[in-house]
Amino acid sequence: MEIDPATLPVKDRYKLLVGAVVPRPIAWVTTLSPDARPNLAPFSFFNAVGSDPMTLLFCPGNASDGSEKDTLRNCKPEAEGGTGEFVVHVVNGASARSMAVTAEPLAWGDSEIELASLETVPSQRVRPPRLAVSPVAFECRTLQVTRLRPGAAGGGNVVLGEVVHVHLDPAVVDDSLRIDPRALDPVGRLAGLDYCRLGEVFSLPRGRAALDGE
Amino acid sequence: MEIDPATLPVKDRYKLLVGAVVPRPIAWVTTLSPDARPNLAPFSFFNAVGSDPMTLLFCPGNASDGSEKDTLRNCKPEAEGGTGEFVVHVVNGASARSMAVTAEPLAWGDSEIELASLETVPSQRVRPPRLAVSPVAFECRTLQVTRLRPGAAGGGNVVLGEVVHVHLDPAVVDDSLRIDPRALDPVGRLAGLDYCRLGEVFSLPRGRAALDGE
Repeated sequence: MEIDPATLPVKDRYKLLVGAVVPRPIAWVTTLSPDARPNLAPFSFFNAVGSDPMTLLFCPGNASDGSEKDTLRNCKPEAEGGTGEFVVHVVNGASARSMAVTAEPLAWGDSEIELASLETVPSQRVRPPRLAVSPVAFECRTLQVTRLRPGAAGGGNVVLGEVVHVHLDPAVVDDSLRIDPRALDPVGRLAGLDYCRLGEVFSLPRGRAALDGE
Repeated sequence: MEIDPATLPVKDRYKLLVGAVVPRPIAWVTTLSPDARPNLAPFSFFNAVGSDPMTLLFCPGNASDGSEKDTLRNCKPEAEGGTGEFVVHVVNGASARSMAVTAEPLAWGDSEIELASLETVPSQRVRPPRLAVSPVAFECRTLQVTRLRPGAAGGGNVVLGEVVHVHLDPAVVDDSLRIDPRALDPVGRLAGLDYCRLGEVFSLPRGRAALDGE
């Protein structure tokens, strides 16, 4: 089946991306508006970038009217009118339902944190609060925002952030900083309203060594 | 446990990122060198970006000597000496072992495709070949490359690409372009040499509706 995306409605292109790029990790992101009102929302167009500097990115799409979502308005650099800060939390089995509650866009300044009855604690290096429920949190300073098509409903944006502080629940990590995936119990994002838990975990050697055995 | 990444060796920052940002989707990327030699490598710092234009990104880290990996050298824009094209393939259970074989860096110009005995077919809109084994392939033109720290071993790079053609195996998609996650059987990336299959798949409503029930 061969498809030219230029011939597809934007919503069908979206459907192909969220159906094929799976499973996606979930960034549950706290920000503060410039007048210090907290915001919380999940983003699954999210990943690590590099370790020097320690960087990650997430991609908040434009809202359906083409405007910037609250999280992007809040975390963009100060020079662009934002605060330049955000905190990324890992979503696990225990917090998945609360995360879904916060996926509802509220009016700017209304708090998804209150709606989901989530406890927050102060962050160490940035102003947005940290969610107590999450076993891993990355406090970030925004390095840059790349906007693919400002003002368009389907336009993506890439927020690059430097990790300036890491919070870890000792229950998910060993002394060598190896995180145990079963203890972490991460939730992955699929298409539509679907999510997944970890299934079979297996190891594969790299390179020629993987040619041997099953 | 509170950690200032500035106090950590770069390899430990990497360990935290790959352990916490899970499960990651895998982009299995074909490119051509400017003199038309094919290359294939997997990248799990990968995700969708937006649907207008239809865009995705992946983040090839620098090689251990700080140089650009073959995939980045090949796919960067023509103005930077590359070809400006790449094809992203979804990795499923049936192709996971072949994918791991291609994770071994070979000399520039040597083909991981031959090492893994993979069949290729011509792409529709770009010059790099498509892997016959993969049920979904996105043919892409590179929009831009952002380099976080050129020349540093841990430096990340973000390759943004516009999807100009989509290949789909009809066995994984229905008439409304909904991809069936069980039919796709995607493989997710964890830390170290670990990978995962889909486990429990569940649905959650968005917003206030998720407050109800279990």
